Amino acid sequence: MSESLRRRPTKTSVLIAVDLANHIVSSGLAEGTALPNEKDMADELGVGRASIREALRLLETRGLIRIRSGPGGGPTVRKPEPSDFSSALEFALQAERATLAEVLRAREDLSPFAARLAASRITAKQVRELRQVLDLLRADPTNDEVFATQGRRFEALLAEAGGNVVVRLMVDSLVAIQWDTIPHIEYPTARRRSVVRSLEQVFDAVAAGDGAAAEAAMQAFVRNGARYWRKFYPDLLSRPIRWTG
Amino acid sequence: MSESLRRRPTKTSVLIAVDLANHIVSSGLAEGTALPNEKDMADELGVGRASIREALRLLETRGLIRIRSGPGGGPTVRKPEPSDFSSALEFALQAERATLAEVLRAREDLSPFAARLAASRITAKQVRELRQVLDLLRADPTNDEVFATQGRRFEALLAEAGGNVVVRLMVDSLVAIQWDTIPHIEYPTARRRSVVRSLEQVFDAVAAGDGAAAEAAMQAFVRNGARYWRKFYPDLLSRPIRWTG
Repeated sequence: MSESLRRRPTKTSVLIAVDLANHIVSSGLAEGTALPNEKDMADELGVGRASIREALRLLETRGLIRIRSGPGGGPTVRKPEPSDFSSALEFALQAERATLAEVLRAREDLSPFAARLAASRITAKQVRELRQVLDLLRADPTNDEVFATQGRRFEALLAEAGGNVVVRLMVDSLVAIQWDTIPHIEYPTARRRSVVRSLEQVFDAVAAGDGAAAEAAMQAFVRNGARYWRKFYPDLLSRPIRWTG
Repeated sequence: MSESLRRRPTKTSVLIAVDLANHIVSSGLAEGTALPNEKDMADELGVGRASIREALRLLETRGLIRIRSGPGGGPTVRKPEPSDFSSALEFALQAERATLAEVLRAREDLSPFAARLAASRITAKQVRELRQVLDLLRADPTNDEVFATQGRRFEALLAEAGGNVVVRLMVDSLVAIQWDTIPHIEYPTARRRSVVRSLEQVFDAVAAGDGAAAEAAMQAFVRNGARYWRKFYPDLLSRPIRWTG
């Protein structure tokens, strides 16, 4: 963050972490690449081992490195996963005392936007992948595990097809936080069929390249979900977001 | 994140951090409240001091506690700032090799959405605050510092007035990352006057409670900015996002 807006002084460990992160990303270091150990880094940079350890922990928290202890251990490069960012958003939302209703409200706008972007940018390969997911959902709407996994996969593929990495990160995180917050519910088959029909409408619009229809269908899908929970689980929407790690 | 989607095993330090964060937020501990020191926490929980130290560093990175070393030091409660979350988003965007163009593209949708929300929810007090900011911008469009500070303040107030904490976090972060990425530019007075006119249009629509007009005015504002940079600083939009701490 720019200096004028930062209230905390920049610590040595943060400066080290920034340099190391820039090095890893701009050099394109592959996942699993070993980094120098704590002692060698400390010697090279002329700083204490405590600062190096803090810098490494910070990068571990953000998901850019993995630290294994013991012989043969040490820091290696890792590719941050969507869940690393979701965790940061979930943490911030807990601190802000946000509720599930606010997460759904944000999704009501962001997910349709992602669908609109996808309609204009989706590749033929991505259309096939989305169709496979729909086929799985249609094949067995009574299977709880398939329903949860493929439903989320549909949204993840759509967000990816939109081609805007910022929108994708946000949609993926909101979906993850939504499912973190909603307890396991055994939905009746009628509800599942209704979800699948909504996703079919989204798919048809996206595959046809119709951005406005994709946006409207996705908005209907998210709103239907909120309406369903409000009706059958009235306490759910006021549930506070809790960071789960 | 839910267990099924997490690939890393949950470490003791993360579990401790989750419990401590939940405790701080749900007890409503005030900023500055002293927490037990490392040794007392370790004794109470029956875990090693290294795990406690890691947990505390994690919460420090996320902005929920402050750790001061030396006599009279130790962990105290802190209120996470918007910049703590921006830092996490900036980190993720660097790892994803996102560019300024993608940040602006996300802003083209999110900022108008925030303006639309603000039009239906803004309070009389917030209208007065926004007007004061506009007055400052109008009073001296040649003052670089006022222009930068109040321009950002206008957007922050608008996002807050929207009343959706998720949208606010995202808009604030994208604005912060945008200004982190764009170097200091001395804009000609004509450009500044044009920015102020755009913000006046946003203000008029929001104050009148006209969501559609607020959305359109804000979209025009963000698009004009992107167009300006593309025309006069053609390399800027392809600039990669870099985490700055």
